[in-house]
Amino acid sequence: MPSEELALAKLALLDYLGVTMLGSRELSVNILLSYKLKYFTKGTTGTHQIIGKNVKLNQLDAVEFNGSSAHALDYDDTGASTQCHPSALLFPALISISEDHNISGKKLLKSYIIGVEMLNVLSKCLPFLHSNGWHPSSVFGPLASAVSSSLLLDSSEKQLANSLGIAASLSGGLVANFGSQTKHLHIGNASASGLKAALLGKGGFTSSEFILEGPKSYFAAYGKNDICLQDFLPGFGDPWSIKTPGLNFKQYASCALSHRLIDIAIDLKRKNDISPSEITGVSCRATPRAKEILFYQDPEEGLQGKFSIHYLIARALIYGEIKTVDFTIEAVNDPKVKNLMKLISFEVHEDWDDSGNLWRPDVLQIDLADGNQLEGVSTYPKGHAKNPFEWDIVQQKFIDCSEWALSRKSISNVISLVGTFEDIDDSSQILKSLQVE
Amino acid sequence: MPSEELALAKLALLDYLGVTMLGSRELSVNILLSYKLKYFTKGTTGTHQIIGKNVKLNQLDAVEFNGSSAHALDYDDTGASTQCHPSALLFPALISISEDHNISGKKLLKSYIIGVEMLNVLSKCLPFLHSNGWHPSSVFGPLASAVSSSLLLDSSEKQLANSLGIAASLSGGLVANFGSQTKHLHIGNASASGLKAALLGKGGFTSSEFILEGPKSYFAAYGKNDICLQDFLPGFGDPWSIKTPGLNFKQYASCALSHRLIDIAIDLKRKNDISPSEITGVSCRATPRAKEILFYQDPEEGLQGKFSIHYLIARALIYGEIKTVDFTIEAVNDPKVKNLMKLISFEVHEDWDDSGNLWRPDVLQIDLADGNQLEGVSTYPKGHAKNPFEWDIVQQKFIDCSEWALSRKSISNVISLVGTFEDIDDSSQILKSLQVE
Repeated sequence: MPSEELALAKLALLDYLGVTMLGSRELSVNILLSYKLKYFTKGTTGTHQIIGKNVKLNQLDAVEFNGSSAHALDYDDTGASTQCHPSALLFPALISISEDHNISGKKLLKSYIIGVEMLNVLSKCLPFLHSNGWHPSSVFGPLASAVSSSLLLDSSEKQLANSLGIAASLSGGLVANFGSQTKHLHIGNASASGLKAALLGKGGFTSSEFILEGPKSYFAAYGKNDICLQDFLPGFGDPWSIKTPGLNFKQYASCALSHRLIDIAIDLKRKNDISPSEITGVSCRATPRAKEILFYQDPEEGLQGKFSIHYLIARALIYGEIKTVDFTIEAVNDPKVKNLMKLISFEVHEDWDDSGNLWRPDVLQIDLADGNQLEGVSTYPKGHAKNPFEWDIVQQKFIDCSEWALSRKSISNVISLVGTFEDIDDSSQILKSLQVE
Repeated sequence: MPSEELALAKLALLDYLGVTMLGSRELSVNILLSYKLKYFTKGTTGTHQIIGKNVKLNQLDAVEFNGSSAHALDYDDTGASTQCHPSALLFPALISISEDHNISGKKLLKSYIIGVEMLNVLSKCLPFLHSNGWHPSSVFGPLASAVSSSLLLDSSEKQLANSLGIAASLSGGLVANFGSQTKHLHIGNASASGLKAALLGKGGFTSSEFILEGPKSYFAAYGKNDICLQDFLPGFGDPWSIKTPGLNFKQYASCALSHRLIDIAIDLKRKNDISPSEITGVSCRATPRAKEILFYQDPEEGLQGKFSIHYLIARALIYGEIKTVDFTIEAVNDPKVKNLMKLISFEVHEDWDDSGNLWRPDVLQIDLADGNQLEGVSTYPKGHAKNPFEWDIVQQKFIDCSEWALSRKSISNVISLVGTFEDIDDSSQILKSLQVE
């Protein structure tokens, strides 16, 4: 496995750990946790750690919780071509296996990379899932999680085949549940279902030998009878899809459609050392879809701030950053930000329509008191596969996501562990380093 | 709820308990159990009983085990019009709730009847699931289990709606896995997923308010966008589908296609007091499909006996019954049976083809040494909704299924408890009465 791919997997791991730490505070996963504690053996602890809480659950419950937390803020990565959430689907199961078996960091990263590849090949076979009402992550996720988990468990070819068949019958999940807490559960349940399939297959439980192709199979049920995996397998790992087409990461905990304009604002602020008092006007121009969704001109609640370009750009121009703590009721009512928001206009770029390329650039212009004008343009937000994250950015994101719970020392310990993950012998160290006091 | 429907629900309950007792000995569920014990909190016991073993698991694991056991022999009931396995899908979750809450027998039976109705209305909305590769029990089961469980939990309308939405995203399951152990898991997983959805919904977890209908919904994903539940709801409970079209039960643990000929053989044996030595020839005539599937002329292993009309009819004519213990290697090599098998012929009825009515009658003729000939005809096997079980038959089936584990006294206690189930205050008594020594 080339070192560049391993480096990308480490980046994804640190990103996963951060968004999961922060996601563990969301309401959905706290309902899930209280349900698990209530219906889990009363009064005893489990064997597997959950991230962000000082609680252990049994293995599948821990995986379901960690996967749901990872996606609870919709702040986790997506495959650039799969519409899936690879890290939230794969890492929870893989890390839980490391708690029971002696798994090296390199082995874990490799099995993650192969899980990402599995998502990619399945999404090539069934490219139209989303428009037919299926959530790709929860349809492909159990199979990818089963394959990568089986690799970590050293399953035989036959055990792996059975695991794949079991996972296929545990797949499902509907787009209709987008916008509800059930979407978070889709991801955790998919990761846990894949692990369950891997463990059952390893234990000798049987499934069909012809699960993917042929009549009444997985491809037939979700797509068409004539899909043939063999047609897509020659591309498996050539190149590894973690690198090409890559993964998309999110730098800010706000709506993805706001990211390009925030990037420009922060960049202009840094390069020109602008003070808010010099600004006489700000013009944002974006797609019709961005204008439609980022509609809060004057947000009153924290979460509305995630969908307010006025709020986000004002804050970025004043403070030079957007942090996860910027979505509280206090933050959106910051008087300095409120003042600057009044000078911001937000329009659809005049010569654009929504039928064209999704990635036509966003434009931001700033008028200054001295008559000068600054302008920035962005086609791909920072973190997109075509404008990739560097280590220091994902490191800063991790700090931002976890400083509510971990000491500076613990944070730097996690970052250094992940940074040298391919060299560590016992990958369960990573969970121990995340323990909340 | 009319008393006739309650009586049918009690019949289904006793049938469920019997097939689950016996099914708990199958390999598939024993792999499932060892996996659960291994990944369950090590060394501690759970809170909910599993049937056929002296073991407790946590609630969802117990439900998954009991549901999988109930279907492990494919000896459980099916809805006459739904292709689903109502009792194995519904009772495991409902009975587990009775272990945590004070549930009267009548309340449990009512919620079962409504679960059966839910399966019926969903299968009217999506009648073509099976041919598209979906296993109806595991697609409809989570929703039916969620609804009947929510009724037992006294969920509000809003909680019930959320549970239904969660259950819809936990549905799935492929026909391609028929003939493998994963088919057993489909049923247990569906029952447990429905309960999980009911408990999460009761706890405030949210799902879409428009999960069944409209674009990207459950109906759209599994069928078409234009399916409207309102079109089918006027028939809900009018009549209750547990009565019309009813449930099909299985009297023998052999292939369903053998049941009509066995019925005739046992009936002729009883009415005419035939001794094997009087028989000079036996002619069985059935459908092409039966001939194709019941192809073991001279079974050598116990399970082959389930698919041998020669074996089954010889045994029925000698002993006047087919019991669950008749599928061992010793039983299929019984010399008396082997002798009589030589006199049996098995043909497709001359003027039949397979395109016609599935329920055209089977015919059995017996030639006797005195020159007389006995003939019997059967259109519906005993247990089919059009030739329904009586209480004494299901009672005998329960004895046959459970005498390996329960004393005569315990067996008669279970039968009497189920017989008066609508009068008992604490329905969890039924589990206590099933405890294996």
